[in-house]
Amino acid sequence: MIKSMDSHVLLSPSKRISLPSGDVLRGVKTTDAGFIGFGEAYFSYIHYQEVKAWKLHKRYTANYTCPLGQIKIVILKSLASGQPDFADAQEFILSEESSNYQRLTIPPGVWYGFKGLAQPSSLIFSLLSGEHSPDEQESFDFQQSAYNWE
Amino acid sequence: MIKSMDSHVLLSPSKRISLPSGDVLRGVKTTDAGFIGFGEAYFSYIHYQEVKAWKLHKRYTANYTCPLGQIKIVILKSLASGQPDFADAQEFILSEESSNYQRLTIPPGVWYGFKGLAQPSSLIFSLLSGEHSPDEQESFDFQQSAYNWE
Repeated sequence: MIKSMDSHVLLSPSKRISLPSGDVLRGVKTTDAGFIGFGEAYFSYIHYQEVKAWKLHKRYTANYTCPLGQIKIVILKSLASGQPDFADAQEFILSEESSNYQRLTIPPGVWYGFKGLAQPSSLIFSLLSGEHSPDEQESFDFQQSAYNWE
Repeated sequence: MIKSMDSHVLLSPSKRISLPSGDVLRGVKTTDAGFIGFGEAYFSYIHYQEVKAWKLHKRYTANYTCPLGQIKIVILKSLASGQPDFADAQEFILSEESSNYQRLTIPPGVWYGFKGLAQPSSLIFSLLSGEHSPDEQESFDFQQSAYNWE
């Protein structure tokens, strides 16, 4: 059931259970591949065509699902300088649709970013293995990079 | 910051941080009041005017937020028989609105249920202290109870 997309990033099919009063969508549980510990769970709305990038966790593993709308997640490797390497991008689509409802696990040391693909907004669910801490993460302004988000 | 609504249920104000590309909404973190451990995180859509009730966890603590729409959560005590006690209901409104973005912590042994108040659907975020297990929870069909959900 689990596909390893490279030596680190894991894309795991997840379940959307259809119910007349409203569907149930799995998030993360302790026995899931890719779960290494719980620190914090939070949400980010991302408006249509907006980009939130680039971000890197130094120590934390992150798990993402998209329970509303559809998003693109772009994964980059880190250069020896620590900067993102735009030559080797991998793109993933996460969506609320049961046919494509999946969870993406991103290990530490990987740069990544999001784009909103659904109108008016999509919701990104994030589960980190530790609590938010400014010294644990790095950011790189996507407007300073030539990455083509189309 | 934390209000104790009775000896058990906790209603905690939570943060919705406004951002041009899409807001960030807090969920649960390990140092939050009401967090006692992580087992599973999942989502339930609930359509407008629909009810999902009644449910009781025997051993798990549950934390809920509403990152989309608005829901009513009704909390009941348990009779000596183990059945829900409809005489002593407490009602809480959780919503995505920053003015009312809150987290409700429900301890084990408490019956509760949900109603969707927003069109077309609301999203309920659930974080349980253990993984889903049929022998850990009980249910009572809300259509068999006289509780007035209006």
